[in-house]
Amino acid sequence: MADEALFQFLHSEIIQYVNSAEPGESENGRCVSKLENMGFRVGQGLIERFTKDTPRFKDELDVMKFICKDFWTSVFKKQIDNLRTNHQGIYVLQDNKFHLLTQLSAGKQYLEHAPKFLAFTCGLVRGALSNLGVKSIVTAEVSVMPACKEQILCKNIKS
Amino acid sequence: MADEALFQFLHSEIIQYVNSAEPGESENGRCVSKLENMGFRVGQGLIERFTKDTPRFKDELDVMKFICKDFWTSVFKKQIDNLRTNHQGIYVLQDNKFHLLTQLSAGKQYLEHAPKFLAFTCGLVRGALSNLGVKSIVTAEVSVMPACKEQILCKNIKS
Repeated sequence: MADEALFQFLHSEIIQYVNSAEPGESENGRCVSKLENMGFRVGQGLIERFTKDTPRFKDELDVMKFICKDFWTSVFKKQIDNLRTNHQGIYVLQDNKFHLLTQLSAGKQYLEHAPKFLAFTCGLVRGALSNLGVKSIVTAEVSVMPACKEQILCKNIKS
Repeated sequence: MADEALFQFLHSEIIQYVNSAEPGESENGRCVSKLENMGFRVGQGLIERFTKDTPRFKDELDVMKFICKDFWTSVFKKQIDNLRTNHQGIYVLQDNKFHLLTQLSAGKQYLEHAPKFLAFTCGLVRGALSNLGVKSIVTAEVSVMPACKEQILCKNIKS
């Protein structure tokens, strides 16, 4: 619980700081992209440690399962609730109780602020995938707080 | 290990970002104080959770012991190695292998960058103490990496 809290508090501080440091531009685009970049580098670092003793992954789906189970659990203390794929490089990861959104009110009131709270995590996933050899575009959407859907569009450089 | 790494990576990202966002002023003063403030708020939040089920502290020394043991362990995965006090409101906490400095080279080369890596933690301790009713000034010094000494000067508002 302690670690969760530390990450959560630190994460909100970063959002707040980046938000105030970047001059108010169109829909916080700059703020979101800064956060995404931070997440990317953290994801790169983390995945290196996590996969140190892991056997080589069979395929992209295998990588994605690792992200949903092991990676997600170590960062957010729970697994992804639902993973769907079209088997053509699109993966949709659903977390019904996304850790970093639980602080926000569950109503629709703060829905507009959700992108800031998701950007770091999108970067985190993109960074992790990138160091596993999977180039991707990661986007996230929230329709009902605190559930969150991450859509991953993979451009596998191996194929 | 995973959590440690997450905190460590996030911490370096913040330093890097704050460092680049604050225009280069005299000896990074602004950067250090931003980091200290972030730490302060995180410390305030954390101590509230940690002490939820803790019995009331006897005195200042009791508070300080809690910081050295429980608080330090939950954040840095180890206890403070040495706690000294003059029993007049000055406490010196020594950590011989400070978690956030172990990434830096052990030589003297990067000693000048140490303040940036300590500022967040100084704030963390000050914030935690503040919410326990102890007003304080927290400073840190490093003479040999990765050992770190935090000096806490308490201005107890209760007395």
